[in-house]
Amino acid sequence: MKVVSYLDVEARPVEAKGAIDVTKRVLISEDDGAKNFRMRCFEVGPGGATPYHQHPWEHEAFILEGEGACVDQGKAERPVGPGDAVFVPPNEWHSFVNKSESTLRFLCLIPSQEV
Amino acid sequence: MKVVSYLDVEARPVEAKGAIDVTKRVLISEDDGAKNFRMRCFEVGPGGATPYHQHPWEHEAFILEGEGACVDQGKAERPVGPGDAVFVPPNEWHSFVNKSESTLRFLCLIPSQEV
Repeated sequence: MKVVSYLDVEARPVEAKGAIDVTKRVLISEDDGAKNFRMRCFEVGPGGATPYHQHPWEHEAFILEGEGACVDQGKAERPVGPGDAVFVPPNEWHSFVNKSESTLRFLCLIPSQEV
Repeated sequence: MKVVSYLDVEARPVEAKGAIDVTKRVLISEDDGAKNFRMRCFEVGPGGATPYHQHPWEHEAFILEGEGACVDQGKAERPVGPGDAVFVPPNEWHSFVNKSESTLRFLCLIPSQEV
């Protein structure tokens, strides 16, 4: 069993094209023996956003803190806040945008074989 | 894209043997097209606990609220609180125990093919 606070995991800048003020902490991964899916914690600063992009794998996200929006396939903005679960199906265009003056923090899990 | 507050998902009692004051909300599942893994939110009342048990699939959990302990394979209690990620490898014995006077709330994800 592994128990770790997200605060004790290094936050690394996300440098993908289109990412604005985003960091990622990998909380559970293949390195722990997790063969099926991977838990990451993202933080997006005020005015920041994850890239508007698509990929063949799904996201399962959960908003921990902050107020923001998920931009969907049609570029509609879906408001999100603490306690919201978000499922992004494979191949759907999406972005997480911070709409507040404080950090938007969320978990985002993906299948382990993906990036 | 699906966006849902955990509060808008029905909390159902967990009736497995050994469960004490535990409810489960299934936030993301195969019903949403999530073929790889499933997101559930558990609430354990004061004095409650999930069953001390084992199974061939892993858990990836994240503590949202409350103070408790994860009982491990050797029956040692690992304290957990908000912001802690917990990985329970396949086949390891485990239980989540509420050690506080308020609700222990956590996400727990499992591979989709499991119960």
